[in-house]
Amino acid sequence: MFSADAPHFRILRLLRDEGPVSRAELGDRLGLTRPRLLSEVERLIASGIIVEAGMAASRGGRRSTLVEIQPNLRFAAVDLGASSIDIEITNGRLEPVAAFHEVADIRSGPRAILQRVNDMLAKAKVEGAFERLDGIGIGVPGPVSFRDGVPVSPPIMPGWDRHPVRELLAREHGCPVVVDNDVNIMAIGERHGGVAHSVDDFLFVKIGTGVGCGIHLGGGVYRGVDGCAGDIGHIQVDANGPVCSCGNTGCLEAVFSGSALARDALLAARSGESPALAERLAAADSGELTARDVAEGAAEGDVVCIRLIREGGRRVGGVLAALVSFANPSMIVIGGGLAQLGHVLLAEIRSVVYRRSLPLATGNLPVVLSELGSRAGVAGAAVLASDLAFEQAS
Amino acid sequence: MFSADAPHFRILRLLRDEGPVSRAELGDRLGLTRPRLLSEVERLIASGIIVEAGMAASRGGRRSTLVEIQPNLRFAAVDLGASSIDIEITNGRLEPVAAFHEVADIRSGPRAILQRVNDMLAKAKVEGAFERLDGIGIGVPGPVSFRDGVPVSPPIMPGWDRHPVRELLAREHGCPVVVDNDVNIMAIGERHGGVAHSVDDFLFVKIGTGVGCGIHLGGGVYRGVDGCAGDIGHIQVDANGPVCSCGNTGCLEAVFSGSALARDALLAARSGESPALAERLAAADSGELTARDVAEGAAEGDVVCIRLIREGGRRVGGVLAALVSFANPSMIVIGGGLAQLGHVLLAEIRSVVYRRSLPLATGNLPVVLSELGSRAGVAGAAVLASDLAFEQAS
Repeated sequence: MFSADAPHFRILRLLRDEGPVSRAELGDRLGLTRPRLLSEVERLIASGIIVEAGMAASRGGRRSTLVEIQPNLRFAAVDLGASSIDIEITNGRLEPVAAFHEVADIRSGPRAILQRVNDMLAKAKVEGAFERLDGIGIGVPGPVSFRDGVPVSPPIMPGWDRHPVRELLAREHGCPVVVDNDVNIMAIGERHGGVAHSVDDFLFVKIGTGVGCGIHLGGGVYRGVDGCAGDIGHIQVDANGPVCSCGNTGCLEAVFSGSALARDALLAARSGESPALAERLAAADSGELTARDVAEGAAEGDVVCIRLIREGGRRVGGVLAALVSFANPSMIVIGGGLAQLGHVLLAEIRSVVYRRSLPLATGNLPVVLSELGSRAGVAGAAVLASDLAFEQAS
Repeated sequence: MFSADAPHFRILRLLRDEGPVSRAELGDRLGLTRPRLLSEVERLIASGIIVEAGMAASRGGRRSTLVEIQPNLRFAAVDLGASSIDIEITNGRLEPVAAFHEVADIRSGPRAILQRVNDMLAKAKVEGAFERLDGIGIGVPGPVSFRDGVPVSPPIMPGWDRHPVRELLAREHGCPVVVDNDVNIMAIGERHGGVAHSVDDFLFVKIGTGVGCGIHLGGGVYRGVDGCAGDIGHIQVDANGPVCSCGNTGCLEAVFSGSALARDALLAARSGESPALAERLAAADSGELTARDVAEGAAEGDVVCIRLIREGGRRVGGVLAALVSFANPSMIVIGGGLAQLGHVLLAEIRSVVYRRSLPLATGNLPVVLSELGSRAGVAGAAVLASDLAFEQAS
């Protein structure tokens, strides 16, 4: 989508990611001739997207003027989850200037949810987070046609199929809008400012209510022919396993995910098999248990909690071992809500991946937890929004 | 590796794939301005890599001169298998001018095998297939560092680890050489002249002595960080399955592959369970059975043969269903020796893939047999050789 080689795009990305840089250094860093660089910089200054920012330290000879991204640039990063809306407003360097979180059911449909998004953005504006937006990036929990900016047959988003999300937001806010899958934006976030910083080929595995995978290959997200690449939650891991929401049996996310773990924890609490979970269930007003209860139980040494996590890790590890054999990535990042299960989960995943994949593929393969946690999505959405705005600045 | 946008590269590829074209049409097709096109063409004519080829039919106005790839250009395409060497000499349009096949054990080591390759090339030269070579493409049955032109920790190629295959062949023959994995070159072959013609995102699954996958994404082969992407033969499909050559249990290729099928067929023949196989074993001098025996038995209606093929197809289908969920390709091509099991195998693979993957990913997903068969490897090696030679023609 982005013509990553265009000089103006490379200049803007460098200033976004590194802050004020002198013209001289810009030319050196980007391998541009001085006349070419100067004409590009003048054009970007004239368009208002970059500004001068004082003098650089001397490198010997004449001092060079610093340039930087226009400080008033504002991007909106929106992360729609199955049950939440997260929005960050960032400046041109992708530093958050405001953040908002609301509980919302994606099944309320596109009109209701996009109205909520617009209301949250209106609130941000009133509070002074921005005067106008220069770009919006939005992630949704389902397959997306990246080219068309619409969700495509998203299983958990009734009413959203081919809803013109990009067009509606662009019209409402008068700025470029980019729509992507929620796991893809998390992968992009981790690559820009997290544990996968500058790693070209990695898998970002989100284990939340569902399970999905962001595939970052050759420096970009691979989205597949229909926008549903990375849909690993429906890989079968147990032919005799529980029935999945998709209608098949034994899918990974039917066996291990936020909802599967809540189900298994409730069973273990009710049967009295796990004292730690029974105690938490008695104290819970909701009558439900979550991954946090299991994590706490495991930390206290409750064997059922530890077993639930290890069995889940073994299932995830089995799928990842297959994907490592297939894709030969240079890193695997584990994120999403269940990443809070921490090192018990991670140790089990690692053990299966390292045992089951070939040594050549695992010799230098870190399997690590997400650094950005619940911020990964908005961080990636801001990167996409700025990339699009910068590209269109030509 | 290849700067696919360079005008000279695009001109040469077009002439390679379509034959003589007029200057006027070249400019139109490639979107080049007339002065740019003319200067590129003159430069390529001066370098001898293209030549004039008479007048084009009139398009109204002045007739344009045809140009074509130099007819004397010669590429050598080499496909090293576990037990064979296939070589094709092609002209600049990748039409075969000579083909050679010899039985050879890759475990003889790099010196012996590359000597055989050189001997076969010397024979081709004596027979008049070429005077000098303009490029060599070679595929080997193991992981390759594409950048370095060397095999990397190849499991079934003792002695080949980091052997300087590219350097040695380049020195011997005085031409550019490109080394790749054997399944990757098969995928490239099918894309250039086979069933995946011009398809950008597809998987080529080779089921031969072992099992591997060529991953063609976004118009190019994806090779992974260590050159071992696509190594799907070692994905576990049965935790209680047979021990694999890699030391793990229940790998796909330990359960279904040329060698696994030969093993299972021999058992079924000896036990008398399969009359068709028992009969063939009695007639076989070697005391062994092959996939061909199973295919013939199935064609005669032998239930054990049919069951062996269907069970294998189910295993392959299970792995491919997972890969479809992960990679969301637009086509799957089944090749390698076991593709001769034909439609019984294909039907079973399709049935599992279509049942187990999400409808969005399988709605338009053809699962088809290779068109090029045993020629896929040399066809792809020739494409790589010519791409490299054309790139270096700048």
